[in-house]
Amino acid sequence: MGKVIADQSMSLDGFSTGPNVSIGNGMGDGGEQLHDWMGWEGDGPAAKAGEGDELTPFDLLQRSGAAVVGRRMFDVGEEPWGENPPFHMPVFVVTHRARAPLVKQGGTTYMFVSDGIAAALARAKDAAGDKDVAVLGGADVIRQCAEAGLLDELRLHLVHVLLGDGTRLFARIAPERVTLERARVVEAPGATHLTFRVRTNG
Amino acid sequence: MGKVIADQSMSLDGFSTGPNVSIGNGMGDGGEQLHDWMGWEGDGPAAKAGEGDELTPFDLLQRSGAAVVGRRMFDVGEEPWGENPPFHMPVFVVTHRARAPLVKQGGTTYMFVSDGIAAALARAKDAAGDKDVAVLGGADVIRQCAEAGLLDELRLHLVHVLLGDGTRLFARIAPERVTLERARVVEAPGATHLTFRVRTNG
Repeated sequence: MGKVIADQSMSLDGFSTGPNVSIGNGMGDGGEQLHDWMGWEGDGPAAKAGEGDELTPFDLLQRSGAAVVGRRMFDVGEEPWGENPPFHMPVFVVTHRARAPLVKQGGTTYMFVSDGIAAALARAKDAAGDKDVAVLGGADVIRQCAEAGLLDELRLHLVHVLLGDGTRLFARIAPERVTLERARVVEAPGATHLTFRVRTNG
Repeated sequence: MGKVIADQSMSLDGFSTGPNVSIGNGMGDGGEQLHDWMGWEGDGPAAKAGEGDELTPFDLLQRSGAAVVGRRMFDVGEEPWGENPPFHMPVFVVTHRARAPLVKQGGTTYMFVSDGIAAALARAKDAAGDKDVAVLGGADVIRQCAEAGLLDELRLHLVHVLLGDGTRLFARIAPERVTLERARVVEAPGATHLTFRVRTNG
């Protein structure tokens, strides 16, 4: 049985995107700084050989058999992810509107789940088999997973920039519901990687 | 010439106090969790011998010759700090209302500065001589110092609890004005200590 692992970059002032997110500005104004630490080159991350390298979202995807994303993340991501998206696995999109699966090249199929976060996670775990499930965001889907007791681990990439405004990763999270146990800290260029075990109370 | 060093504990969701701060509830609801890592015993921190021990506010005070606090922090702190406050040095309170100095036991004198943050810092540096100046908070005073180019270093104690609401450490900070260079990361029990050099732009 795999784990359910959320992965998110966050600015020091708590934002997982900058302001004014839209199609064509998926990370919001200034939000692309949150991904600089990955050292993108072309379509993928640059080769690195430091501690914590295995903590990139790409490495998470390699050990995962399914991914979960929110509908807004899908809306702004669909175009940049392109016809051969970087997932190569089923991606479950949590949405209010039912829609037929969307098959892309390279093994990625977008599956739209309209009956709630628990149903989306159940289908993702089923599809993943023994592999992990990657919860890629956005913030609201991660919050829902944590509060519902569906999340095993949070990989937080703390990027020491200030964005001033945008999407708050921990907005409206119920503190009495969620306990985070720090499992690992890695100081890497451009980010401090914090890995938490997630406990849901009550 | 000493440095101007701000010191603050922050929850993972970005708060430097919990909600409902008042006299008698100085850290807000649940906010006392932000200080658990210091391992208080009685009036002072417990003896420890781990890496990062020199990063407590107490150690900062020992190398400082003056402190700066905001008026709200003073209002909620005055009573618990008591007749022999833990500072043992001049403490400059940034306020809108002029007031005569308030002399306490053990070397602490509260000095009220009503002509702005730059004047408060100038007086604190003057009083500190070759020693450092400790900017102890609250969030708004730290923001003002950073934006005005008056801050050399920020010591952030990231406490992996969620508070849900309260005083945001980085509320309304102007991201284009302030650049943080990560100088050090220490994983300690109950907190991840992040030390930043602060650069103010333009």
